[in-house]
Amino acid sequence: MGKIICVGLGPGDQELMSVKSDRLIRSAKTIAFFRKKGRAGQARTIVEGMLQEDITEYAMEYPITSEIDFLSKEYKVALAKFYNNWALRLEQIANNTDVIVLCEGDPLFYGSFMHLHTRLKGRVELEVIPGITGMSGCWTALGEPFCWGDDITSVIMGTLSFEKLKKAVLQGDALVIMKVGTHIPKIKIALLEAKKLDQAWLIEKGTMTGETITKLSEFTLDNAPYFSIVLVPGEGRRP
Amino acid sequence: MGKIICVGLGPGDQELMSVKSDRLIRSAKTIAFFRKKGRAGQARTIVEGMLQEDITEYAMEYPITSEIDFLSKEYKVALAKFYNNWALRLEQIANNTDVIVLCEGDPLFYGSFMHLHTRLKGRVELEVIPGITGMSGCWTALGEPFCWGDDITSVIMGTLSFEKLKKAVLQGDALVIMKVGTHIPKIKIALLEAKKLDQAWLIEKGTMTGETITKLSEFTLDNAPYFSIVLVPGEGRRP
Repeated sequence: MGKIICVGLGPGDQELMSVKSDRLIRSAKTIAFFRKKGRAGQARTIVEGMLQEDITEYAMEYPITSEIDFLSKEYKVALAKFYNNWALRLEQIANNTDVIVLCEGDPLFYGSFMHLHTRLKGRVELEVIPGITGMSGCWTALGEPFCWGDDITSVIMGTLSFEKLKKAVLQGDALVIMKVGTHIPKIKIALLEAKKLDQAWLIEKGTMTGETITKLSEFTLDNAPYFSIVLVPGEGRRP
Repeated sequence: MGKIICVGLGPGDQELMSVKSDRLIRSAKTIAFFRKKGRAGQARTIVEGMLQEDITEYAMEYPITSEIDFLSKEYKVALAKFYNNWALRLEQIANNTDVIVLCEGDPLFYGSFMHLHTRLKGRVELEVIPGITGMSGCWTALGEPFCWGDDITSVIMGTLSFEKLKKAVLQGDALVIMKVGTHIPKIKIALLEAKKLDQAWLIEKGTMTGETITKLSEFTLDNAPYFSIVLVPGEGRRP
């Protein structure tokens, strides 16, 4: 009997994954990872050059991406079927061997693996290895202290409605806004109204090759790469 | 000319530090770390067994801990002097050699190193290696997905006033409450009034030896270890 081990890969630089994830990936006989159809997949790209030659790889390809509204019933049904099928398949594979599931960042922090985790719990032995989050890669790239003292740090999705986004932006001291994409104009207005736009940064590929750091107020496009993150550092107690 | 490199150690397990931090610590000639007077220090304890025999160690001992109210002017002045002195000292040491500063968790996320970072920026070459946060060690120990979909994740300090704490607890979906200590009774009331006490966990030493996981509603003491964390997982979108 094998088990399913989800390893957090961290923000993208191989040197920033944990010693334990590094060891498990280098010795893996079987790996699985999510990717969009027709793409190499970010998780698989991160581990390039670390894998054994005779490894077995399972690419778990999302059935849909942006063609269907993610709040629709159709989207939910298609995704549920996808996760159900892969949960069953990984369970069967784990009857014979350990399966290492690759996950960018930290698996239990907004990671897709959680949808397999909830389905597989109790059916097969599961282990999760945490990772450095993508947001941490971004504030490290920024090279400034991010949150201090009694700061409230809020992690907010750009997919929220304007009202919810603005309320959350007003409530937090240090802010992380993820899932930015086409929501940039809405995010800018919410930050402007909360008087926080001037302190906001847009960071792409933090700590990775191709990293870019831009003042959000100077970013003029209406569309940012999906995996960029907006950061507003906190102003907490500083002796 | 050397530089000052602050390495994030992660939640405590040596295997959960990054490949880069691991390498820098094992090859270090000079390290520095914060600790309370008369204590070994958590950061120094984590790296036990990894250091070279002829290493030079600088223990940066806090001048005060809980004897003085941390909101008082006296506290602020004493801490500022302490950070000023060590910034100068590390700058001088870095004239001749690299200095590796050890930092639990992730340095720019509520880490004490930030008080040196702001003072040293521009005076000496600085580098920060991110780490897995202590809170991530705790939700990984809990073994449940922590935040999903459009969840707002809020990181809140138990040191906040009851009113601020309750407002923050109501606003977030997935909650992390740090600096718990003697604030446990206040935190429990805030969570109870927000109808979130039943979903709350108190986690001590997440992913480390001696890890404990307790339902917060069943924790009856008025004082929890300072480094414990309260977690309330989110309830976001789950296809």
